[in-house]
Amino acid sequence: MVSASTSTQTAAPIRLGMVGGGQGAFIGAVHRMAARLDGHYTLVAGALSSDPERAKASAAELGLDPARSYGSFEEMAQAEAAREDGIEAVSIVTPNHVHYPAAKVFLEAGIHVICDKPLTSSLEDAKALVEVARKSGKLFVLTHNYSGYPMIRQARQMVQEGALGEIVLVQAEYPQDWLAEPIEREGQKQASWRTDPARSGAGGAIGDIGTHAYQLASFVTGLAAESVAADLDSFVPGRQLDDNAHVMLRFKARGGRQAKGTIWVSQVAPGNENGLKLRVYGTKGGLEWVQADPNYLWYTPLGEPKRLITRGGAGANAAASAVTRIPGGHPEGYLEAFATLYTEAAQAIRAMRDGSTLPEGLVLPTAEDGLAGMRFIQACVTSSRNDAAWTRLDTL
Amino acid sequence: MVSASTSTQTAAPIRLGMVGGGQGAFIGAVHRMAARLDGHYTLVAGALSSDPERAKASAAELGLDPARSYGSFEEMAQAEAAREDGIEAVSIVTPNHVHYPAAKVFLEAGIHVICDKPLTSSLEDAKALVEVARKSGKLFVLTHNYSGYPMIRQARQMVQEGALGEIVLVQAEYPQDWLAEPIEREGQKQASWRTDPARSGAGGAIGDIGTHAYQLASFVTGLAAESVAADLDSFVPGRQLDDNAHVMLRFKARGGRQAKGTIWVSQVAPGNENGLKLRVYGTKGGLEWVQADPNYLWYTPLGEPKRLITRGGAGANAAASAVTRIPGGHPEGYLEAFATLYTEAAQAIRAMRDGSTLPEGLVLPTAEDGLAGMRFIQACVTSSRNDAAWTRLDTL
Amino acid sequence: MVSASTSTQTAAPIRLGMVGGGQGAFIGAVHRMAARLDGHYTLVAGALSSDPERAKASAAELGLDPARSYGSFEEMAQAEAAREDGIEAVSIVTPNHVHYPAAKVFLEAGIHVICDKPLTSSLEDAKALVEVARKSGKLFVLTHNYSGYPMIRQARQMVQEGALGEIVLVQAEYPQDWLAEPIEREGQKQASWRTDPARSGAGGAIGDIGTHAYQLASFVTGLAAESVAADLDSFVPGRQLDDNAHVMLRFKARGGRQAKGTIWVSQVAPGNENGLKLRVYGTKGGLEWVQADPNYLWYTPLGEPKRLITRGGAGANAAASAVTRIPGGHPEGYLEAFATLYTEAAQAIRAMRDGSTLPEGLVLPTAEDGLAGMRFIQACVTSSRNDAAWTRLDTL
Amino acid sequence: MVSASTSTQTAAPIRLGMVGGGQGAFIGAVHRMAARLDGHYTLVAGALSSDPERAKASAAELGLDPARSYGSFEEMAQAEAAREDGIEAVSIVTPNHVHYPAAKVFLEAGIHVICDKPLTSSLEDAKALVEVARKSGKLFVLTHNYSGYPMIRQARQMVQEGALGEIVLVQAEYPQDWLAEPIEREGQKQASWRTDPARSGAGGAIGDIGTHAYQLASFVTGLAAESVAADLDSFVPGRQLDDNAHVMLRFKARGGRQAKGTIWVSQVAPGNENGLKLRVYGTKGGLEWVQADPNYLWYTPLGEPKRLITRGGAGANAAASAVTRIPGGHPEGYLEAFATLYTEAAQAIRAMRDGSTLPEGLVLPTAEDGLAGMRFIQACVTSSRNDAAWTRLDTL
Repeated sequence: MVSASTSTQTAAPIRLGMVGGGQGAFIGAVHRMAARLDGHYTLVAGALSSDPERAKASAAELGLDPARSYGSFEEMAQAEAAREDGIEAVSIVTPNHVHYPAAKVFLEAGIHVICDKPLTSSLEDAKALVEVARKSGKLFVLTHNYSGYPMIRQARQMVQEGALGEIVLVQAEYPQDWLAEPIEREGQKQASWRTDPARSGAGGAIGDIGTHAYQLASFVTGLAAESVAADLDSFVPGRQLDDNAHVMLRFKARGGRQAKGTIWVSQVAPGNENGLKLRVYGTKGGLEWVQADPNYLWYTPLGEPKRLITRGGAGANAAASAVTRIPGGHPEGYLEAFATLYTEAAQAIRAMRDGSTLPEGLVLPTAEDGLAGMRFIQACVTSSRNDAAWTRLDTL
Repeated sequence: MVSASTSTQTAAPIRLGMVGGGQGAFIGAVHRMAARLDGHYTLVAGALSSDPERAKASAAELGLDPARSYGSFEEMAQAEAAREDGIEAVSIVTPNHVHYPAAKVFLEAGIHVICDKPLTSSLEDAKALVEVARKSGKLFVLTHNYSGYPMIRQARQMVQEGALGEIVLVQAEYPQDWLAEPIEREGQKQASWRTDPARSGAGGAIGDIGTHAYQLASFVTGLAAESVAADLDSFVPGRQLDDNAHVMLRFKARGGRQAKGTIWVSQVAPGNENGLKLRVYGTKGGLEWVQADPNYLWYTPLGEPKRLITRGGAGANAAASAVTRIPGGHPEGYLEAFATLYTEAAQAIRAMRDGSTLPEGLVLPTAEDGLAGMRFIQACVTSSRNDAAWTRLDTL
Repeated sequence: MVSASTSTQTAAPIRLGMVGGGQGAFIGAVHRMAARLDGHYTLVAGALSSDPERAKASAAELGLDPARSYGSFEEMAQAEAAREDGIEAVSIVTPNHVHYPAAKVFLEAGIHVICDKPLTSSLEDAKALVEVARKSGKLFVLTHNYSGYPMIRQARQMVQEGALGEIVLVQAEYPQDWLAEPIEREGQKQASWRTDPARSGAGGAIGDIGTHAYQLASFVTGLAAESVAADLDSFVPGRQLDDNAHVMLRFKARGGRQAKGTIWVSQVAPGNENGLKLRVYGTKGGLEWVQADPNYLWYTPLGEPKRLITRGGAGANAAASAVTRIPGGHPEGYLEAFATLYTEAAQAIRAMRDGSTLPEGLVLPTAEDGLAGMRFIQACVTSSRNDAAWTRLDTL
Repeated sequence: MVSASTSTQTAAPIRLGMVGGGQGAFIGAVHRMAARLDGHYTLVAGALSSDPERAKASAAELGLDPARSYGSFEEMAQAEAAREDGIEAVSIVTPNHVHYPAAKVFLEAGIHVICDKPLTSSLEDAKALVEVARKSGKLFVLTHNYSGYPMIRQARQMVQEGALGEIVLVQAEYPQDWLAEPIEREGQKQASWRTDPARSGAGGAIGDIGTHAYQLASFVTGLAAESVAADLDSFVPGRQLDDNAHVMLRFKARGGRQAKGTIWVSQVAPGNENGLKLRVYGTKGGLEWVQADPNYLWYTPLGEPKRLITRGGAGANAAASAVTRIPGGHPEGYLEAFATLYTEAAQAIRAMRDGSTLPEGLVLPTAEDGLAGMRFIQACVTSSRNDAAWTRLDTL
């Protein structure tokens, strides 16, 4: 893995397009900042909105060549694939139900895809997309951005090296409060599609943030859930999708030992902004990490005082250092973690462009990881409908 | 409620006896310090150990009159009841299985009982004890000491006053790490009886600390669990009782709204000492409290910045102030919270002694509360044996 | 040092008297709780107020024998010294200007003295008191209670053992906000005498809390100030004594190296309750401790991750363990630290009663320590009057 | 002020050059990331190193046109000023002693300057630079990057609006530990020039980080120091410049009230990475902010509970929101704050390019601010040489 800290603006930035992310969107702007930070991309085309007026205005605001502002992703894929200076990669930052059709046309047009999570709005689409991605031979990156945080990389390496012994417990949570009131009825754009099954899929909070929590837990521990027992609620009256989920997990056994865990996600817990937190416990030690304070990782070897490992600090390991831009005590944040995925994708794209092998140790979330997330969502929804009965992920 | 802050050594301290708590015990010393702090008790008799030598040595160490150091609690109850200056109250600080028989003889001998938790080692004993206590007309206090913390009283009053709106979520956890290794096999006294079904009952961690978490959640919110789905584990090989429990809760509906919750307790999570934490969320706000830092209470009215309410500080309410001894910023701790239960018990005992009514607003945990805790333990154990099936508490 | 954790109510508690601490007082109640916690004392006499009515009422409230409630400390010293069952020790908890005359009569009457800080209201009295204490052969303990915290004992031992290398920097601060408004004019009793030179002496905040900060810094590091440069202010218009002080310190050189430091104390800094904080840095590591969260001690060996040492936790050393009552994660607080001084005083008094040598490692603050504190106050006041010129302590 | 959150890649990015910042440098890479994040600049030219080989290699790594990689800043200024597509602005990221000569030639060539702090290496240069900047009519921005943090903007607005009443106290500190050992002797590049008077100027820690602390305090409170009393030390034997500084401040009176303060900076305090902290207290409330956790601002209105204001959260004011990119709970960091200065500079440059007036409320640090910082450094050095005598800033 090339260090993010040494990555820089380069002679040949990757030509990037974007689907979604027009005015009023949130995550599109995040993707653009992430793409810019380390200087590996240049945004040259877009199908920024399904609304033609908004698409045009958004493109102008971003300084795109009007000729490369498209009315639909299909049109864009076709036109860009035909250009000599066409886009090499596309960022898909739409509501969930568009991920699959959009990703399909770009991958099939030979264009690398960087796609927001969750993978799709249905398990069927997810399975299909995995196939499409596999066949395309192109890069497909799912932006589970939290896995780009240096201290998460640190944690993952520590688990792999056995610092925690055998993992027995994984506690993840992701409480928010922004949907504590029915703001979707007041036309708030983010709330509107996230609470709509047609655009989000079967999962509300469990799909939007539950997949993040599950992906992060798996990323750090290397564990996959065998089955879940879930209790999903819509606490705001009239809401169609869950806004709170309690999940108990049984992980697939490893070395004869079965780890257990819980995931709690909520969008109705006042006082929580983006309270993603991960705690992992093994036979020899424990780790604790909080997304809002991401430059710290608590590590407790059993029977010793707690240690506070800091990004860029004395205890940082190779995996953390590889994605660290600035010294300890000068905080990096959410955009830096997001940018790390873009930077690593750029490394992969350049390697593929050169016909060389992918960088060693590449840990970018893939379509398969996205499918695992979709199985997790579906298993939680199914379990909840069955009164929280244990539901296996691999039979879905 | 008389303020603990004004309570003082008085002319006529209450004569107290103790069952258990001899050398090597932990909780007995805690009860003694709690009884001494506000000066309402004088310890004058004891059956401090089932081992006669240890009982005698322990009594001497405590300066008890050798004539009032007894070989058994039965002997003690009989002898003290017969004395004109006999004990007025007794503290029972033995392993769980002794709680019921000991409490029974003292209550029936007309002696008030202050008993450590959980109530008993079996649900049957618990039901019987409730009856005995009721018939006796004597005070029975269960030392769920965490409910004595000022900021917990503050939280309870705030919920009662509607500061949080209707409660929708309750998240409680109590992780520890002291049983991460099989120290019960090395003769560690505390570990030994706590992992032994004959002395502890059917619950391990769920009984020892799960009841604390559940009691605290109920105490603050006024909610009782309707049913639980629990997954209990013994992660340390060979351990007979659970050392980790994941519990999902459905509370009894109130005002047409059913709150949900989770409880996680563990004795095998490295890095956790006594990590009791309670979070309560309602339609209008949230609260967060951590036992290790008990002088702080986070309060978030929905849509406003978080506020840090401190014991003795500007935002403290009447319930908190009533049990506050010293000014804000000078921390009170575990012993002070424990002492508050003893002080409130003293107020009740004096009122009963005088034939007057009990102090208004008395919130001491009772035998009924203990029975609720035993139902919680049993429901969790039963649910776990049934693959985490939802199990009602009231049918047990 | 005998462990506070094993200390208990004993056969022969020490007979204690009290001067000051009647109704409306704050610190008297604290001393009484501290004396009671570990069961080493019984309060039997008092001259609780200079106001005869209040003295009588206070004594009744505390259940004192009316015959042993005295109108003045002189009367009390004379009467108690004459009784066979007279007090063995007295707690002096009056405003500062009474410390010297009261301590003098008790010490000369052969009664041990436990005295609140600062030592006296003038440097002259302080020097005289040191002489009186020395000649008396009795115990004189100054209740610099913060030095009773287990993590402070831990820090002291670590410094002594060289864990920090040679000390170069000491940063202490003690901000409060309770005097941010002129409450002394509204008759608030605590504020009234603390802002009155006749009763407090020449120092306001610097005397009341500055001495605490300085004593704690010296206690932990073993360093004494050589000179200070101080800038004292009375930010509340009309206030006679300082309510804020900035102090730069130069410590006496040790091993050829001169450490430096600063002390900031304030009573007018909104948001601070009792924000005593100590940071010590040496050539090999650093320590950080905050009084409001006293069960934690941050330790950073240079070039390694920070470690969080907890009272009762895995990293606790002998000095901390000796004064620890309950396990890690169950917080001890201000009263426990205060009680530790009383318990250690009891150990000393019993040793003196038996004619045996004082317990090894006794670290109770003495009259000499109190004199050092008075020199610190005077040097700060003098420096501030001289436009913050460096002022030596040993020439005062 | 245009909101950073809405700022985006645009049609016409500003052409930027860079002086310094070649391989091995630290702050150059930071400036480049800051310039890229919001998409307002494109780096097209550089004099990246005084070492020609390193300059060339660095330029290649950055993808610069070799023809625009210059051997000296003089050459670059001349060549770029002559090009039609020449740079519009230049970032100067060299050691301090180069700031003045470099800034001079660019300003005189009509090129805007963004310059790292401190302004220069001597007070004389600083005064001269202020003149040059004034005469040039070009933008000169000093990258006191901490003033770009949203919660610092929040604090500044709150002070201006009177939320704190009249300011009485300002406590700033900036401890680090990276120079705790004499690493400058081992050729560490950053340490080497920062401890060298010829390249840094008269101040070591006081110049490198003391100016940051002082600038931040002034920025938030609007107060300027009247005089300082400083005690500077070089704790590492043989070090030529100070590595620790204790400073007492007296601010210029405002409204008849003189605020006081302290600044502590250190590079030898183990356990501190970049521990910049600012506390401001007024007659009505207090604020507290810590750079390592920059998304939080503690606010305490006198007599009320503390409130935790979060970037992007409910209590954020207009000044904070204007420079906020992403929602609360998703942390922004050091690079985002730095980028805000670049984005605001871009707004100013575009306004100047269009001949329109500068954006209202522009708060970019100027050459005058830099001169104030140089006076602060010089006053501290002078005071320390005079045994910490009070030294006025305006007479220097």
